[in-house]
Amino acid sequence: MEHNVTTHGYVGNKDALVKRLRRTEGQVRGIQRMVEDDTYCMDILTQVSATTKALESVALLLLEDHLSHCVADATRQGGAVADEKIREVSAAIARLVRS
Amino acid sequence: MEHNVTTHGYVGNKDALVKRLRRTEGQVRGIQRMVEDDTYCMDILTQVSATTKALESVALLLLEDHLSHCVADATRQGGAVADEKIREVSAAIARLVRS
Amino acid sequence: MEHNVTTHGYVGNKDALVKRLRRTEGQVRGIQRMVEDDTYCMDILTQVSATTKALESVALLLLEDHLSHCVADATRQGGAVADEKIREVSAAIARLVRS
Amino acid sequence: MEHNVTTHGYVGNKDALVKRLRRTEGQVRGIQRMVEDDTYCMDILTQVSATTKALESVALLLLEDHLSHCVADATRQGGAVADEKIREVSAAIARLVRS
Repeated sequence: MEHNVTTHGYVGNKDALVKRLRRTEGQVRGIQRMVEDDTYCMDILTQVSATTKALESVALLLLEDHLSHCVADATRQGGAVADEKIREVSAAIARLVRS
Repeated sequence: MEHNVTTHGYVGNKDALVKRLRRTEGQVRGIQRMVEDDTYCMDILTQVSATTKALESVALLLLEDHLSHCVADATRQGGAVADEKIREVSAAIARLVRS
Repeated sequence: MEHNVTTHGYVGNKDALVKRLRRTEGQVRGIQRMVEDDTYCMDILTQVSATTKALESVALLLLEDHLSHCVADATRQGGAVADEKIREVSAAIARLVRS
Repeated sequence: MEHNVTTHGYVGNKDALVKRLRRTEGQVRGIQRMVEDDTYCMDILTQVSATTKALESVALLLLEDHLSHCVADATRQGGAVADEKIREVSAAIARLVRS
């Protein structure tokens, strides 16, 4: 595989990420069915919390890969490139913490 | 409409809930495609945060319906039934706040 | 103690709440000292996360008391009073989930 | 300024951080008084949410400084030192997202 500027940090975890996202998609479909089948609201809520946690894990995995690759590369370049990457990832972390 | 044990709080919002969950399912599928297409990690993260927020809205809608119906019914009965419902919904809120 | 409309749900837990809040105040003061003493950032962050969790516990305790008393009283009255209380507590839960 | 092992990322923001933490301490004390004065639970909850948000801002500020300094330094050194710092900061972000 050729490494170039379009190669992102999560490339090595791509299969794991897609697999997790497929499971998450299944969880969301499961919640739909629960609503359609008039499942007790508290049981649906438990599933929604589990799915939110699964999405958070995906986000944390993406973030760690991004820090080890894209941000690490940028800090080695230093200067404005590094500053910009740090600002960008900090904003993403803030969105995540607040969501 | 006959009120019985299988009628849940969200019944009036069922269509709205299913519609939102279908959109959320689409969002999760979109994130999968972004990963498969090597989209820039920060853009994927933005989508993950948006999807998490969408799921939280579903949870809050379910919770409000549950409070207006199931919990309200239980508190009108009072006693152990009411206590049990309050404990149950409080645990669900705690899970949601911590997820 | 006279029970009247200004008696809130958390009255029975007042001492426990004040005690927890005093401990939380101490935690915040501890974080200040850590910053002043140039403690390693990651160790400060661990303390900030612990303090946030402590505040969340206070919020969940207040919420459970509010549901068992104020909301339960309102739902027994029914009508607009109940609707208004449910809307109010749902908004507070939403703020908490999103904070 | 001499760079050595005891200089942390947030040094430049130290005064701002201490100032914010003092305000946060005041907010927590305010919540105590509200509880002691039998303030309406929903008004207390609003203050608790605001204080949690203030603590989150402190955490995000510390994190951004840590990324621009400690993590950036480590990634320039590369190898095991960089890997260890990335793992450490990722764990801190995870705790923050889940708190």
